Amino acid sequence: MAPVAPRSGDAIFANVERVNAELFTLTYGAIVRQLLTDLEEVEEVNKQLDQMGYNIGIRLIDEFLAKSNVSRCVDFKETAEVIAKVGFKMFLGVTASVTNWDADGTCCSIVLEDNPLVDFVELPDTCQGLYYCNILSGVIRGALEMVSMKTEVTWLRDMLRGDDAFELQVKLLKQVPEEYPYKDDE
Amino acid sequence: MAPVAPRSGDAIFANVERVNAELFTLTYGAIVRQLLTDLEEVEEVNKQLDQMGYNIGIRLIDEFLAKSNVSRCVDFKETAEVIAKVGFKMFLGVTASVTNWDADGTCCSIVLEDNPLVDFVELPDTCQGLYYCNILSGVIRGALEMVSMKTEVTWLRDMLRGDDAFELQVKLLKQVPEEYPYKDDE
Repeated sequence: MAPVAPRSGDAIFANVERVNAELFTLTYGAIVRQLLTDLEEVEEVNKQLDQMGYNIGIRLIDEFLAKSNVSRCVDFKETAEVIAKVGFKMFLGVTASVTNWDADGTCCSIVLEDNPLVDFVELPDTCQGLYYCNILSGVIRGALEMVSMKTEVTWLRDMLRGDDAFELQVKLLKQVPEEYPYKDDE
Repeated sequence: MAPVAPRSGDAIFANVERVNAELFTLTYGAIVRQLLTDLEEVEEVNKQLDQMGYNIGIRLIDEFLAKSNVSRCVDFKETAEVIAKVGFKMFLGVTASVTNWDADGTCCSIVLEDNPLVDFVELPDTCQGLYYCNILSGVIRGALEMVSMKTEVTWLRDMLRGDDAFELQVKLLKQVPEEYPYKDDE
């Protein structure tokens, strides 16, 4: 059978089921507000958002692989491009760019200028340490772990903190041998 | 100026910004899971989801009125139809039907057969009292309160509890005189 060509982020996004972006934005805002109330410490909220994102990422990767026809990427460079160009488009309807590669191709930045998570959001002074979009770093980390890449994902720039864009640094820690993620008895 | 015709839910939905429905579903699932962990009591989770929905509804109504060109509904009957046909379509991409009107036209059911919130969701035995979609009842209650209608919204049927559809009963308690929702000094 001839290999199926990978589909563009635009083409996939046009065909997947979608919901209103403002509903999503407000729902995400409600989560963050809830966590701030329940956990009190901004550091704990950052951690929890990242963990929620991780749990989403390990499931979202299935939808991504099923809908995108993307096959195994040859290297981390290609992986980062696919996340930025296909992944962000397919899930959030925006595209990101990849920059700031290190010499050995294991660390780069994903830069996002348009981010539906933060529409209408302003952080009060009490939340200055908050990484409001930390769910995104978790999603990337979780999704990549499912395709055998352990990564560390950190925010370098954040428009809610006054920067001119959102910049996520993605650092490849190691590539682990691929395993079926569930044990037989689960 | 000639009045602008109300737009259909389909037409609005086609033109608003949207995100991937699976991302929304998983994000909503993460909220519910988080609340179950933090609050422990299922009853408390129901209450919290409803409150989160209320907070979303009082903001979403602005987007709804701005994008839909819907003007003041003549009565509660028309209001219910607009929620089911335009509101649900515009935000979740699905339509609902309105049934079971009482004699004086102040209580009806909104029935939903397709509900993106519950894709892939199964409730464990420990969550049997949970109204998983309780955010929806809160959204309707909050949105209607912003257009001067105090309502009580309760689940009559729930597919996660084995019913054949989702049925929300919406009861009009009173119509309050419209007030600008913010005080001048806020």
